[in-house]
Amino acid sequence: MEYRKIKDEDDHDVASDIESVKGKSHTVASSNIAMATLGVGSSERINWKRKGVVTCALTILTSSQAILIVWSKRAGKYEYSVTTANFLVETLKCALSLLALTRIWKNEGVTDDNRLSTTFDEVKVFPIPAALYLFKNLLQYYIFAYVDAPGYQILKNLNIISTGVLYRIILKRKLSEIQWAGFILLCCGCTTAQLNSNSDRVLQTSLPGWTMAIVMALLSGFAGVYTEAIIKKRPSRNINVQNFWLYVFGMAFNAVAIVIQDFDAVANKGFFHGYSFITLLMILNHALSGIAVSMVMKYADNIVKVYSTSVAMLLTAVVSVFLFNFHLSLAFFLGSTVVSVSVYLHSAGKLR
Amino acid sequence: MEYRKIKDEDDHDVASDIESVKGKSHTVASSNIAMATLGVGSSERINWKRKGVVTCALTILTSSQAILIVWSKRAGKYEYSVTTANFLVETLKCALSLLALTRIWKNEGVTDDNRLSTTFDEVKVFPIPAALYLFKNLLQYYIFAYVDAPGYQILKNLNIISTGVLYRIILKRKLSEIQWAGFILLCCGCTTAQLNSNSDRVLQTSLPGWTMAIVMALLSGFAGVYTEAIIKKRPSRNINVQNFWLYVFGMAFNAVAIVIQDFDAVANKGFFHGYSFITLLMILNHALSGIAVSMVMKYADNIVKVYSTSVAMLLTAVVSVFLFNFHLSLAFFLGSTVVSVSVYLHSAGKLR
Repeated sequence: MEYRKIKDEDDHDVASDIESVKGKSHTVASSNIAMATLGVGSSERINWKRKGVVTCALTILTSSQAILIVWSKRAGKYEYSVTTANFLVETLKCALSLLALTRIWKNEGVTDDNRLSTTFDEVKVFPIPAALYLFKNLLQYYIFAYVDAPGYQILKNLNIISTGVLYRIILKRKLSEIQWAGFILLCCGCTTAQLNSNSDRVLQTSLPGWTMAIVMALLSGFAGVYTEAIIKKRPSRNINVQNFWLYVFGMAFNAVAIVIQDFDAVANKGFFHGYSFITLLMILNHALSGIAVSMVMKYADNIVKVYSTSVAMLLTAVVSVFLFNFHLSLAFFLGSTVVSVSVYLHSAGKLR
Repeated sequence: MEYRKIKDEDDHDVASDIESVKGKSHTVASSNIAMATLGVGSSERINWKRKGVVTCALTILTSSQAILIVWSKRAGKYEYSVTTANFLVETLKCALSLLALTRIWKNEGVTDDNRLSTTFDEVKVFPIPAALYLFKNLLQYYIFAYVDAPGYQILKNLNIISTGVLYRIILKRKLSEIQWAGFILLCCGCTTAQLNSNSDRVLQTSLPGWTMAIVMALLSGFAGVYTEAIIKKRPSRNINVQNFWLYVFGMAFNAVAIVIQDFDAVANKGFFHGYSFITLLMILNHALSGIAVSMVMKYADNIVKVYSTSVAMLLTAVVSVFLFNFHLSLAFFLGSTVVSVSVYLHSAGKLR
C-alpha cells in the first residue's frame, strides 16, 4: 500500500516547504531567515522549533477548548444545533487555509507545490478521514445505550493505545521499548486523572459496549493515522493546500449530517438559531485546533498529537481550579505525575 | 563515614559466602555445585539466581503475610498482645539463624567469617536499626490523631521515595534516570492501586500530620538503608551471624516494649494469652519474612526490597479475590499496570 512508503520519504528537504508555515508564526518566520543565513546544517534545529511551536499551539488550543465547553455548559444548555456548528468549523478552516494560500502566492508566486488545482490521484484519499470520523460520531449515539457519559470518557482513553498500535502497523514507524512503556503509562495516567467514585461502573460494561468502545477507538486512531499518511505522502506539498482539500470534504460530510439529523430544526428556526458569542468563540477555537492538528501531523506525528492533547486535558483541570473553583483529587495528582513521567520517557527513550 | 565505602566492596568474591545460604534452598545449593564445576566465570549467573530466589521468597512471604492478617481479622479481634508476638518473632529469627549456623559449622568448620563471637567494633552499629524501628512504631500511635487508617496506608507509600533518596545519599548507589522514573511510578502506582472513595481526605492532612508522615517515612527508609550498610560492610561475613546479632538487639528492644506497654496484661493473663493457631502461623511468617529481608539486603538491595514488597501488595489483592471474594477496582488495575511498567523500567534502565 502506498502509505507504507511514508517513513522513507520523511527525511525530506525542510527548505522546500518551510515557506508553508510562514505568516502563521513569527518564530517560524525568523527560523526561516536563520536557516537562510546558517545553511542547511541548522535545518534539524528549525525542524524542532517548528514541531515545538505547532505542538504548543495544539496543547493551548485544546485546553482552552475544554474550558470553553465548561464555560458554555455553565451559561446554560446547548441551544444551537451541533451539526451546523461543525459545518461552520469546517468552512472556517477552509477559509483560513485559502487566506494563508493567497499570502503565499503573493510572496512566492504559484508553484507546483502550492497550487490549489489537484489530480484525482492526489485527492481520492482525502474523503476517507472525514468518512471515518462521521462513522465514529454516529456510533457515539449508540454506545450510550451501554455506558454512561463518565464511563465513555474513561473508555475514550483506549484511543491512546489504538493510535499507538495503528501508528506502528500502518505507518511502520517504530517506537522504542521505553517509548512504548511511556505510551501505556500515558493511557493509565490519563485514566487515573479522570477517576471518580463512579468510575468502577465502567468495569461492568457489557461485551457489546466494550466492542463498540474498541471499534470507536480503532476508527478514531485509524482516521488520525490515515490523515498523517495523506499529509506526509508528498512532503513538499503545501500544508494549506492539503488542509483545503481535507476540509472541503469535511464540509461536504457535515452538510450531509445537517440534512440527516437537523433538517427540520434548521428549516423552521434558521441556521443560526441559538448561537451566542461563546458559540462563535468555540467555533473559532475548534477551527484553529483543527488546523493545529494538521500541522502537528505534517511536522510531527500522531504520537506527539496524543501527548499534546493528553497534557492539554491536565492543563484544563489545573486552569479550572482557578477559573471555576474545581477541586483536584488525589487521583488527579497521581495521574498527572504518571503522565509527566510518560512525557519524559517518550523523549528519553528516543531511538538513536 | 564508614558505610559510604560499601559500594566499592560490593563486588566481593561470591564463593566466600555462598555457603551461608546452603540448606535454605535447593536452587542455591545446585548453583553452588554449578559454580564449582564451571569456575568463577559463572559467578555472575549464580549471583543473579541467588538474588532471584531471595526476592521471590520475600515477595511470597510478604503477600501471604497480608493474607494471614486479613484471615486473622475475619477470625475475630487480636486477642494476644502484639508486643509479645513481636518478641517471639525476634526470638524465632535468632533461633533459625543459630540452627543454620550449626549446620554450616558442621559442614565447613568454624572460620573467621562464620564464628559467632564478635568485636565491639562490629556489633556497636547493630542496635541502631532496631532503635529506629522502635521509634517509628512509637510515632505510629501519634499519627492517628492527624490521619485515619486508610489515609495512613496511602501516606506509607512515601517510604518508597524516602528509601530511594536515602539509598542514593547514604549508600552512594546510583540509579539511572529511567530507574528514577520507574521509582516515582512505583510510588504512584502503589498509591493508585489503594485508592478508594475516601482517599481524597488525605489531601486535607494538616501540617503536623504531613510532618509526622515524612519523618516516619525517613525513619523507615533510614532503618532499611542502614541495615543494608551494616550487612554489606563485611561481605564475606556469614549472613546468619549478622542476622543473629541484629535479632538479639531486636529481642532486647521488644522486651523493653513489653515492659513499657503490656506489663500488666502479661503479668495478669500470662505471656501466651489469646494465642491461636493463626497467631503462631503469623509469627512464623513474620520470622521468615524478616530473614528474607536480611537476605535481600545482603544479596540485592533496598530498591529490590521495595519492589518486592510492592509487588507483594498487588499479589495479595489478586489472591484475595479468590480467597475472600474481594472486588478489584479500576484504580487497582491502573495502579497495577503502572507498577508493572515500573518494574520493567527498573530492569530496562540499568546503568551499564
